[in-house]
Amino acid sequence: MSDTTEFRRVGVVAKRTSREALQAAGELATWLAGRGLQVAVDEAVVVAGGGEVPARFEPAADHDLVVVLGGDGTLLSVARSLAGKVPILGVNLGTLGFLTEVGDAELYPALTDLLAGRYRIEERALLDVRLERASGESLAWRVLNDAVIAKSALARIIELTYRIDGHRLAACRSDGLIVSTPTGSTAYNLSAGGPILDPQLPVVVVTPICPHTLSLRPVVVPDTSVIEVTLETPREEVYLTLDGQEGTPLDEGDRVRVRRSSSKARLVKTTGRSFYDGLRDKLHWSE
Amino acid sequence: MSDTTEFRRVGVVAKRTSREALQAAGELATWLAGRGLQVAVDEAVVVAGGGEVPARFEPAADHDLVVVLGGDGTLLSVARSLAGKVPILGVNLGTLGFLTEVGDAELYPALTDLLAGRYRIEERALLDVRLERASGESLAWRVLNDAVIAKSALARIIELTYRIDGHRLAACRSDGLIVSTPTGSTAYNLSAGGPILDPQLPVVVVTPICPHTLSLRPVVVPDTSVIEVTLETPREEVYLTLDGQEGTPLDEGDRVRVRRSSSKARLVKTTGRSFYDGLRDKLHWSE
Amino acid sequence: MSDTTEFRRVGVVAKRTSREALQAAGELATWLAGRGLQVAVDEAVVVAGGGEVPARFEPAADHDLVVVLGGDGTLLSVARSLAGKVPILGVNLGTLGFLTEVGDAELYPALTDLLAGRYRIEERALLDVRLERASGESLAWRVLNDAVIAKSALARIIELTYRIDGHRLAACRSDGLIVSTPTGSTAYNLSAGGPILDPQLPVVVVTPICPHTLSLRPVVVPDTSVIEVTLETPREEVYLTLDGQEGTPLDEGDRVRVRRSSSKARLVKTTGRSFYDGLRDKLHWSE
Amino acid sequence: MSDTTEFRRVGVVAKRTSREALQAAGELATWLAGRGLQVAVDEAVVVAGGGEVPARFEPAADHDLVVVLGGDGTLLSVARSLAGKVPILGVNLGTLGFLTEVGDAELYPALTDLLAGRYRIEERALLDVRLERASGESLAWRVLNDAVIAKSALARIIELTYRIDGHRLAACRSDGLIVSTPTGSTAYNLSAGGPILDPQLPVVVVTPICPHTLSLRPVVVPDTSVIEVTLETPREEVYLTLDGQEGTPLDEGDRVRVRRSSSKARLVKTTGRSFYDGLRDKLHWSE
Repeated sequence: MSDTTEFRRVGVVAKRTSREALQAAGELATWLAGRGLQVAVDEAVVVAGGGEVPARFEPAADHDLVVVLGGDGTLLSVARSLAGKVPILGVNLGTLGFLTEVGDAELYPALTDLLAGRYRIEERALLDVRLERASGESLAWRVLNDAVIAKSALARIIELTYRIDGHRLAACRSDGLIVSTPTGSTAYNLSAGGPILDPQLPVVVVTPICPHTLSLRPVVVPDTSVIEVTLETPREEVYLTLDGQEGTPLDEGDRVRVRRSSSKARLVKTTGRSFYDGLRDKLHWSE
Repeated sequence: MSDTTEFRRVGVVAKRTSREALQAAGELATWLAGRGLQVAVDEAVVVAGGGEVPARFEPAADHDLVVVLGGDGTLLSVARSLAGKVPILGVNLGTLGFLTEVGDAELYPALTDLLAGRYRIEERALLDVRLERASGESLAWRVLNDAVIAKSALARIIELTYRIDGHRLAACRSDGLIVSTPTGSTAYNLSAGGPILDPQLPVVVVTPICPHTLSLRPVVVPDTSVIEVTLETPREEVYLTLDGQEGTPLDEGDRVRVRRSSSKARLVKTTGRSFYDGLRDKLHWSE
Repeated sequence: MSDTTEFRRVGVVAKRTSREALQAAGELATWLAGRGLQVAVDEAVVVAGGGEVPARFEPAADHDLVVVLGGDGTLLSVARSLAGKVPILGVNLGTLGFLTEVGDAELYPALTDLLAGRYRIEERALLDVRLERASGESLAWRVLNDAVIAKSALARIIELTYRIDGHRLAACRSDGLIVSTPTGSTAYNLSAGGPILDPQLPVVVVTPICPHTLSLRPVVVPDTSVIEVTLETPREEVYLTLDGQEGTPLDEGDRVRVRRSSSKARLVKTTGRSFYDGLRDKLHWSE
Repeated sequence: MSDTTEFRRVGVVAKRTSREALQAAGELATWLAGRGLQVAVDEAVVVAGGGEVPARFEPAADHDLVVVLGGDGTLLSVARSLAGKVPILGVNLGTLGFLTEVGDAELYPALTDLLAGRYRIEERALLDVRLERASGESLAWRVLNDAVIAKSALARIIELTYRIDGHRLAACRSDGLIVSTPTGSTAYNLSAGGPILDPQLPVVVVTPICPHTLSLRPVVVPDTSVIEVTLETPREEVYLTLDGQEGTPLDEGDRVRVRRSSSKARLVKTTGRSFYDGLRDKLHWSE
């Protein structure tokens, strides 16, 4: 529980393809401004919200809070760009997500709690993903859910070698490989047969996608590990994808290194609802 | 067991990217010609084989036998283009495949058996795949293994509706869907968690790829069924792939209909080795 | 569609542990008798139903119809004992089953349709299961769902060899093995990772339970096959279980042979509801 | 690396059903005694080894080292009875295990390294398992691999409720449930579809066995959690099994609580071979 004064500058981000989210964001901006807060919105919201125009939102700027209206996807994108510095409140306007646990009807009660200091910050691990190309080029990203190396729909099976802290673990043929945080374990990892991980665990899970090698299974490793994946397949279309949202093509010999980031995402929680409560409800485990 | 006179015109096809296969094909053409057979090879083989040049091979032409040197992939491609009329002998120059069961060292003994009439023809079901685009365009293919509707590496999860004989079976979110023959059941279907099917069964298996809907499972249906898959997702990159080798992009509302083909692939078998023997050895089921 | 005169003698069976089913059975017997039918009930129903006592039910007797009130389990038990001669109408008083598709509220409308000839008979394959003990003893059963060879909770992993038509398919370590009809594919087979099979397919599926051999997968074979399973493990507690309801302990060297039965179970259907409609609804495939 | 003087009293345990292990144990005892160490063996070894009789081995006694000759099973049983106080060297006389990594031929080289101080101790988490019966009775065990609540072969599906730190996670129907340490993750958990866990992770994995609820998946939780499983099913035969070796029947309402033990098993390692090297080789991940 914290002092309310810390929330002075609030950014509002809406899912750009959702008219409903953009409108809700405009209303929210007005509501927040009416409580004396400095509000910033992104350009799309301004257009939709009408009326007096709040400052344009700079996602990397020094805000005290960002409210995200959309789904888990919108939150992932904000979490990557903010790089863990600003607390994020995720609001879901459709079906409840794993990250955006506040529903439509709970938005204003949740904000009231928040401004009154009734909330907690839950930190979530991020991963640093570095691509070292055979050509010498190097690129870097940060992810909240996962880094995925996968073949394109038209490519044939690909061969990847992966190492944990330098130990060669496997040289395997599959559709690809997922390196996921605990937060991402309920996303693509789960569809591919990986385990669900408590979000506070200091671990990373490495899960093959449709492995041709039938004995290949998901492996959970310490989050202090360096996971290195090398693409051994020539001539096929293979991509590195970050949180399922950004991506880049890979070439033979390109190497992807994943390790825990020094920064963490900061999610705002206004309910006592646990991760396990969410699992049970979303996956229908109480028939 | 049949009279040897039926094999007069033999086509030889080699995997084009394998120098070893092209050279073996050249030698084989010489060997067959030395036994008085009319031999035809494709252009790549001519270049590699040197010496006297056999007739160029027309894959759709009226041959009595086609020998394929390469792997399962090369055989799939020949089986599609021949549309089931000509018997095919598959020879594997690398690791044994499910379709190309004759190994390198067994090639000439197998051919000797074949020419002496010691062989049998095993028929394998093909599927007719018809794409009916929302735009009105219509395309058709024939496959020996499978038709796959799958998202590209950069796309997000997609939504497909599928119907069996008009009954709406599911409206599901996944990476895609595999419609496979029994022959294809040991290929992509197996990697995606589908069952192994005896190749003579009159069935088709429909297997989801990394389903977001966790209760979604492979379903085996009669091969008299019409399986219809509709892409419900707008704006994502989705592809229809045939035997993992050819493909075309799909748009929202495009519909793929799959049904048993009236023609069958005809595989030449020169050993008494059963499908189950192959399974046991390739999947290491006798530790 | 059939003439109504064929239903003269109707047997009524209720789940013995359900007070609700026994009471419904008593009411049903009265209703049927009021329509001039000869009704027979089993002893448990007599006690619960009160009033005038219908003839006691001999399950092997020559009835024209048997109505089963309970769940899939009750129907399985009746189907085994009737050995496919008498049509069975399954009525479910709790959650809808795969076999008992008529719900509580639909019972009397369904019976009215039935007596008016508005119904069809759906045949379902049965399996003959023969146990040939190493000691020379031989036992036989008939099943509608499955025959399961499995270790007891206290036993360690067991080793089974199985053969399809004499071909040794695998010698594997696991918790056990399921040999299932298409009808049984949505029962234990599904929980163990086996595929769903259309109930009219001429196939049997062989599915390992928690295999230690990670490459072991379900195999679908023709229903003309003889499937033979031999227990290779000494000294552990292993059981053969029939439809999950009857069972007998196995010893080292005991052999279980499974093949299609010459008789079929005959299920009465009064709705146009297909197998695929049932799947979609019960497994929540339309989110 | 440590001073050699710490190994003065060495216990030798052999797999009792293996004549080979008993004989090897007798030879080892002679070899150790020849190097001036105090050796103790269990009764079975005495009988098999012949010659001068070393002291009888008291498993709970204060030894400096216990050498186990057998398989992973023998080591599990010793680890439970020693409760983590004494270092254990596991020697495998058959196929290499995950716990007994020293093979037959490496035994004496490994012991020579050990006595020369060239070794390290790897600690492995143990779980405390407490059974609180509905009747009021209470029983406790310690396990190195897993605690399993599972139905007997003849029982029908059972219903379990499980809670993590008091949060009700699921009320599910299945064959049972595995609560496994990282060390046990490559044992029963792996066969049931659970993930592989690095043995040093501070986690426990809860994996359903053949769940009827198809969305139920393995969940990895912090090893500081209290995992509580309640049997909701009346009248079925259900067992609690410890490391697959000891067991006790459960009744309706019985509750099993699992939490990390304060003591750890201490495994002696004489090679630089990592857990990941073992995985790759045992599961054939480098085809």
